[in-house]
Amino acid sequence: MEKVVVGVIGAGRIGKLHINNLKRNPHVRLKKVSDVFADHLQEWFQKSGVEEMTKDFEDIFNDAEINSVFICSPTSTHADLIKKAARSNKHIFCEKPISFSDKETLEAYEEVKAAGVHFQVGFNRRFDKNFAEMKDRVQNEKIGDMHIVKITSRDPNPPHTDYIASSGGMFMDMSIHDFDMARYLSESEVVEVFARGTNLVDPAIGEKGDIDTAVITLTFANGALGVIDNSREAVYGYDQRIEVFGNNGALVADNETSTNLKYYHKQTVESDLPLHFFLERYNDSFITETEEFIESIIKERETKIVFKDGIMAQRIAQAAQESLENSKPVKVNDEIR
Amino acid sequence: MEKVVVGVIGAGRIGKLHINNLKRNPHVRLKKVSDVFADHLQEWFQKSGVEEMTKDFEDIFNDAEINSVFICSPTSTHADLIKKAARSNKHIFCEKPISFSDKETLEAYEEVKAAGVHFQVGFNRRFDKNFAEMKDRVQNEKIGDMHIVKITSRDPNPPHTDYIASSGGMFMDMSIHDFDMARYLSESEVVEVFARGTNLVDPAIGEKGDIDTAVITLTFANGALGVIDNSREAVYGYDQRIEVFGNNGALVADNETSTNLKYYHKQTVESDLPLHFFLERYNDSFITETEEFIESIIKERETKIVFKDGIMAQRIAQAAQESLENSKPVKVNDEIR
Amino acid sequence: MEKVVVGVIGAGRIGKLHINNLKRNPHVRLKKVSDVFADHLQEWFQKSGVEEMTKDFEDIFNDAEINSVFICSPTSTHADLIKKAARSNKHIFCEKPISFSDKETLEAYEEVKAAGVHFQVGFNRRFDKNFAEMKDRVQNEKIGDMHIVKITSRDPNPPHTDYIASSGGMFMDMSIHDFDMARYLSESEVVEVFARGTNLVDPAIGEKGDIDTAVITLTFANGALGVIDNSREAVYGYDQRIEVFGNNGALVADNETSTNLKYYHKQTVESDLPLHFFLERYNDSFITETEEFIESIIKERETKIVFKDGIMAQRIAQAAQESLENSKPVKVNDEIR
Amino acid sequence: MEKVVVGVIGAGRIGKLHINNLKRNPHVRLKKVSDVFADHLQEWFQKSGVEEMTKDFEDIFNDAEINSVFICSPTSTHADLIKKAARSNKHIFCEKPISFSDKETLEAYEEVKAAGVHFQVGFNRRFDKNFAEMKDRVQNEKIGDMHIVKITSRDPNPPHTDYIASSGGMFMDMSIHDFDMARYLSESEVVEVFARGTNLVDPAIGEKGDIDTAVITLTFANGALGVIDNSREAVYGYDQRIEVFGNNGALVADNETSTNLKYYHKQTVESDLPLHFFLERYNDSFITETEEFIESIIKERETKIVFKDGIMAQRIAQAAQESLENSKPVKVNDEIR
Repeated sequence: MEKVVVGVIGAGRIGKLHINNLKRNPHVRLKKVSDVFADHLQEWFQKSGVEEMTKDFEDIFNDAEINSVFICSPTSTHADLIKKAARSNKHIFCEKPISFSDKETLEAYEEVKAAGVHFQVGFNRRFDKNFAEMKDRVQNEKIGDMHIVKITSRDPNPPHTDYIASSGGMFMDMSIHDFDMARYLSESEVVEVFARGTNLVDPAIGEKGDIDTAVITLTFANGALGVIDNSREAVYGYDQRIEVFGNNGALVADNETSTNLKYYHKQTVESDLPLHFFLERYNDSFITETEEFIESIIKERETKIVFKDGIMAQRIAQAAQESLENSKPVKVNDEIR
Repeated sequence: MEKVVVGVIGAGRIGKLHINNLKRNPHVRLKKVSDVFADHLQEWFQKSGVEEMTKDFEDIFNDAEINSVFICSPTSTHADLIKKAARSNKHIFCEKPISFSDKETLEAYEEVKAAGVHFQVGFNRRFDKNFAEMKDRVQNEKIGDMHIVKITSRDPNPPHTDYIASSGGMFMDMSIHDFDMARYLSESEVVEVFARGTNLVDPAIGEKGDIDTAVITLTFANGALGVIDNSREAVYGYDQRIEVFGNNGALVADNETSTNLKYYHKQTVESDLPLHFFLERYNDSFITETEEFIESIIKERETKIVFKDGIMAQRIAQAAQESLENSKPVKVNDEIR
Repeated sequence: MEKVVVGVIGAGRIGKLHINNLKRNPHVRLKKVSDVFADHLQEWFQKSGVEEMTKDFEDIFNDAEINSVFICSPTSTHADLIKKAARSNKHIFCEKPISFSDKETLEAYEEVKAAGVHFQVGFNRRFDKNFAEMKDRVQNEKIGDMHIVKITSRDPNPPHTDYIASSGGMFMDMSIHDFDMARYLSESEVVEVFARGTNLVDPAIGEKGDIDTAVITLTFANGALGVIDNSREAVYGYDQRIEVFGNNGALVADNETSTNLKYYHKQTVESDLPLHFFLERYNDSFITETEEFIESIIKERETKIVFKDGIMAQRIAQAAQESLENSKPVKVNDEIR
Repeated sequence: MEKVVVGVIGAGRIGKLHINNLKRNPHVRLKKVSDVFADHLQEWFQKSGVEEMTKDFEDIFNDAEINSVFICSPTSTHADLIKKAARSNKHIFCEKPISFSDKETLEAYEEVKAAGVHFQVGFNRRFDKNFAEMKDRVQNEKIGDMHIVKITSRDPNPPHTDYIASSGGMFMDMSIHDFDMARYLSESEVVEVFARGTNLVDPAIGEKGDIDTAVITLTFANGALGVIDNSREAVYGYDQRIEVFGNNGALVADNETSTNLKYYHKQTVESDLPLHFFLERYNDSFITETEEFIESIIKERETKIVFKDGIMAQRIAQAAQESLENSKPVKVNDEIR
């Protein structure tokens, strides 16, 4: 394929981000963007580099020139849009999570499989330079057999409480990235989850029935153990660290900072805070994930984040939620059909 | 009290260590050491600075001059020795764990309480300069309310498999220090434990019925969460890191190294490995814990590690074991009577 | 001005780099590139994004549409090209150093002043994120009055010995960047230089009459001291560190690395080497320096690196050379006319 | 020799420090201490562990039991005391510098040589664990041939201005340690010095004719270059860093801190300041240097810091002073007779 002609569904924060990154890709033609609030987005659209804007996503599916869609609308719409996209024979990049329901996700999966289109889930962290290099070294046996995967993942601020209700819960909304990283780095399926979560950051989150602080234990098929700790609010910034430990050694990835300056003065020695949030920290990885998707289409090869990756991260999040509610470890099934 | 006249029961690795540290304390007179293998210890004894050596610990209890004992014999003997020491009206420093049985430990506790003698458990890590400063800053509200305590604690090599059987299991033998640190830093009781453990380091450990790799989730009375990851073998050395995270910030304690040199060469940049094992890493803290015990006697004040600290760490270890065996979270009771 | 129409003279490594960076700037039209080896550059030119290529730089000066030139040819041609560009009324970005002769540089300066065109020297390091932030904090009085500026600047490999003869010597070719950083960060003129240099890396460099290892002491007009250490070969990569020390504190900028991973294994703890060379380390700063130049033209304001910056860095290099040859400190004059 | 019977001359800060360290050495008998202010030192003396105190140092030389003296009196008295000690046939530990005059130092040297007694200069930094390990790795060819030695050495506060006049100047008083480290690590003699110094910290220092800020370039016999930067006041603490750079790599020693804690909060990430001053930073090295001296006597071997080390550091300091005053590089002679 010479040109990837893209339609983007949803022009919220993440949709705009992808558009901005796609704009720089010489293989991409940004033909259409749809958003229900298109009327309010005129100013942005003028500078967006996209050719047309519409309120109706059907305009994208009906456009024969468009061969690929980016699904950046709310999660509740994903599964339907995936099915429509597949039936329109368009390649699909879908934001995480695929849906809140295993059943819906599997139905979407069936359609994608039947259509034979490319499909990639938006697990951008796989492309972070530190974590990608970590993965590389794990594959090169630098730590030998993996024994423990340890992920710290804390947001700088909680989302608006309005968002909480539709977020699918912290595990589905936030920890899902960590579940994917755990699978990615361990190269093994998660077979069991135990989650303890609590409401310490903001009572309003608890009132919406969600948690904001959690510790999650994972058991992998290969026998390794994983542990994730999450918080909705780290006042010092976006805390994103991963560590893998094996019988031959360990690899530790620290936070990224804006500069490496050290400032020595009378009271203390100061270093930069971690980069503030995902737009800053994972900026490059968002670019790389779209490049990966575009390249997979052009070169007609599978993407590096396939449908199953989306299914499994979602199942782990559901198991974590069930574990939290029933206070017991919960099994995760990795059979897709 | 002018002089603390000490008898030491057990001249194994840890007994010798305490003797060596006590020797430098101007308030201490090292009067007797007992060990069943006294015959084989003559050479060491000559240079030990202790006045007498005996095979029979009763010689220590019967010595009216001796006012304080260090119990450094195998765990299975601790409870009995504590009771005897209490009845002989001697102050007691006891190595961890107090015993393998809550009942025995409580009986010993009753005798100690009745006798009104000083009692300290050997949780030396509380005196590590990094962790002590961390505790200080937690008390000074540097991180605000605590949300998560995260402990990584990995030994450089597994113990001899002969030792495994009598160790009480990894939780009682090794993680018990981490349970104490979790209580110490959180300033709250652990009310529930969930433990996942596995045998990845050495099959011989599994054959003895023990594990060598674990992830443990703690829930505290104040609502905070804790997580500990343990391994019996980190090939790069003794990995001892702690992190406390709260609503106002976080404190992170890293490993200690022999020097701070960085070596830049054609292939990589090298730093020192973590200090090899507890004798190197916690050397100073072992000295300080004996100083604390001696000073508490001289100044007639309570020690900083009281009997309840020993009881609770032991109960958490037992709960972890039960959780591991039954694959469910287990409650921990903090009522002593 | 709406569009900056650019002609680039010289399509060597640095010319190509600027072209690549300018290509991404929406305010720039890359109209022409000239190079005496144009015939050999056809393949590169096809993908370069430049509209035309010529062997003769006069084609650029004669092109009335072109309003700005990038001078990226050998240093010996700079002064003449600056004069010609000024007479053609074109804005000028010139690579460092401006020339090897103070007289030639001043003549070029007169023409630029007379023409009233924008002029920027290629001291890209001023735009490195670490050093730029350091400058910012110096201006914000974070360290108070400056006492010492300390620069370590070591290349990963020496240049080809063929290049040495035409390089103007290590001070003019390599240290000149450090001289500029010293002036930039101290915000004061260098009034005296003492340089000790030697030939330790490769005898072939000495045979060409140059040095490869140096320590240079600077004295600033404001009384502060500066020290630079240079080497043509640091086997571990491009070593670029700066430290400023004042009566209220110090700021230290370390090397940049590809990832922040730490790898713990049986022998040592490994970190990444410094980024290999200037293309990797200063990649972003090259982009920013061209953005600065383009913006200064569009907004009709002075650039942040004016002609005098080029003159002074060159004079310090000449003073260092004289100090080296005569083994005594040498004064630097900062009067331009 | 079974016991080293020590007399200490001078019970100021450094004399007391040595006494305190010697007290712990089982091979040492601390027989006498002399100080002109003995009357005011009664309280300290009672707890000092020294058997006798006297006002008159002759009491030490006349004591036949005493076989070794520590000269800790003001520098102006050193040469005479060394001669007297040598004539009394006592081994000598002498604080740095040996004297302010090359002639006096050489006369003392002759007497020591004639008497055949052990002699050690108080260059304690050679025993710092970081620098000692650095030396070791240099000897093990870890960096190959040395090209550059770089020393940063800054005090936390300037001394009382009263002291300045008798200090011998900053080079003789403070930089002398750095001159010794330069010789020690380079394993080569300094053949030339260029020093630039200035008065930026406190005008009162300038009024006493001394400087407080300096940059010193050293040229070594083996062709390597050295650079030292000094300040009398680093508000953030005692700044003691060394770096050696060679054709195969570099070794960098950083400051030591009290703990390795990192504190992340809303504003910044804080680390500990460098240890405050020499008593904290070099505490262990002071212990080791006395152990070295005592052991050299007992084992009848040469000490690791011989008389020539004292002579050369002093000569480099004098050359630096001359360079400062005459604004030119100054040669250093390493012939002793």
